[in-house]
Amino acid sequence: MSGSVTVQAPPPVIVLVRPQLGENIGKAARAMLNFGLTQMRLVAPRDGWPNPSAGPAASGADIVLANATVHETLAEAVADCSQVFATTVRRRDLVMPVVDPAEAATIIHGEAGLSALVFGPERSGLDSDDVALARMILTVPINPEFGSLNLAQAVIIAAYEWSKGVELAQPPLADLDPPAPQTDLEGLIGATNEMLEKIDYFQPESRKVTTLRNIRTLLTKPRWTAKEVQMMRGILRGIERGPR
Amino acid sequence: MSGSVTVQAPPPVIVLVRPQLGENIGKAARAMLNFGLTQMRLVAPRDGWPNPSAGPAASGADIVLANATVHETLAEAVADCSQVFATTVRRRDLVMPVVDPAEAATIIHGEAGLSALVFGPERSGLDSDDVALARMILTVPINPEFGSLNLAQAVIIAAYEWSKGVELAQPPLADLDPPAPQTDLEGLIGATNEMLEKIDYFQPESRKVTTLRNIRTLLTKPRWTAKEVQMMRGILRGIERGPR
Repeated sequence: MSGSVTVQAPPPVIVLVRPQLGENIGKAARAMLNFGLTQMRLVAPRDGWPNPSAGPAASGADIVLANATVHETLAEAVADCSQVFATTVRRRDLVMPVVDPAEAATIIHGEAGLSALVFGPERSGLDSDDVALARMILTVPINPEFGSLNLAQAVIIAAYEWSKGVELAQPPLADLDPPAPQTDLEGLIGATNEMLEKIDYFQPESRKVTTLRNIRTLLTKPRWTAKEVQMMRGILRGIERGPR
Repeated sequence: MSGSVTVQAPPPVIVLVRPQLGENIGKAARAMLNFGLTQMRLVAPRDGWPNPSAGPAASGADIVLANATVHETLAEAVADCSQVFATTVRRRDLVMPVVDPAEAATIIHGEAGLSALVFGPERSGLDSDDVALARMILTVPINPEFGSLNLAQAVIIAAYEWSKGVELAQPPLADLDPPAPQTDLEGLIGATNEMLEKIDYFQPESRKVTTLRNIRTLLTKPRWTAKEVQMMRGILRGIERGPR
């Protein structure tokens, strides 16, 4: 009918935050490539990068390691992503949509932009600030009496679910703009916090951390496009300035 | 209608045929227990049983190893099973139904009897005689250019798919608050428009209708809860008022 071109959403990037052992980075690479994922991003890997232990553990998935990029912060690593999933167990401190791997895969295939699947350090998992950067929590439902999913296992299940939808994926609704890239969103959050700082919004000081997190959630949840984020910034600026 | 009781099919047993490394047996046990599978059967493990390398690799899934049974042949190991899946790549030498992990899970949940998921030795995989004992072939569809699924990874994907059909899943989305009632939303939109009117935001007049509509979309899209709507109103009011 129309001359529209069906564009398939790009494969998600896998972001490992402060991974500890090179061996586990290699195993994650292997897990990824088994299901066709090739883009790995490393945030502050504990032992630096490249790491000589990664290669042998990758069992041939060298291309993933060779193309891996290194970032100082999670914010930087997901700056170009319009959808960010934090892989973690349910968090009491954060009110955020929680999805399972199959639901995440469906969302990724339907996104117009790039998605990121974020995994935390082996021992501790993602900390609250990392999770707060995400737009959704991805939880792998496991045995409540024995939750011992390691990094590569979590990666492989997410990658496996994604791969199941590859042929089936519906083209994303053509003319929907994607959610704004993370940098735009951070710009809005930062500007809002600055305005609120000026009006002593963060009193008492003891509540500040929680309030900052709530504002982040408030502004992340809308999934505003870049244009909408700009509009919101304009509104806030205008109201702050007051009548001319 | 009928007095029939819905009985859930028993969890499948995991059969490892001639496994080589104790470490891999341990990892398979861990993979199983993560998704609620506890019955492991070992056919002629290369290094005998018990194997001291298995425990540490199981990361706490000791119950699976402790209950594992040892068998001389695959036939003996699956003697009590009414459905047997051989996990392998597609075989030219055998004409047998081929299913993927999700299909296998559906079949297992629908079985009246016990099912077995059979995995071969690490290097070579199942030989033809072993596969011939099965009723179906289970193939995990992987990257055709990089097939490097290890034993524990194959086990975890089969176990994960099975677990999706069971209620061991953690409670989903449930306790997220619903979006605010329409009146709250209208309150926010109205208050925002009033603030914007004061700062001549709706200039030129000819664009006003479109701009009002865009603001409505901007504030409706987030699906904020009543609490979040209140928070947003507080933020806007505070910024309008300015520093005290």
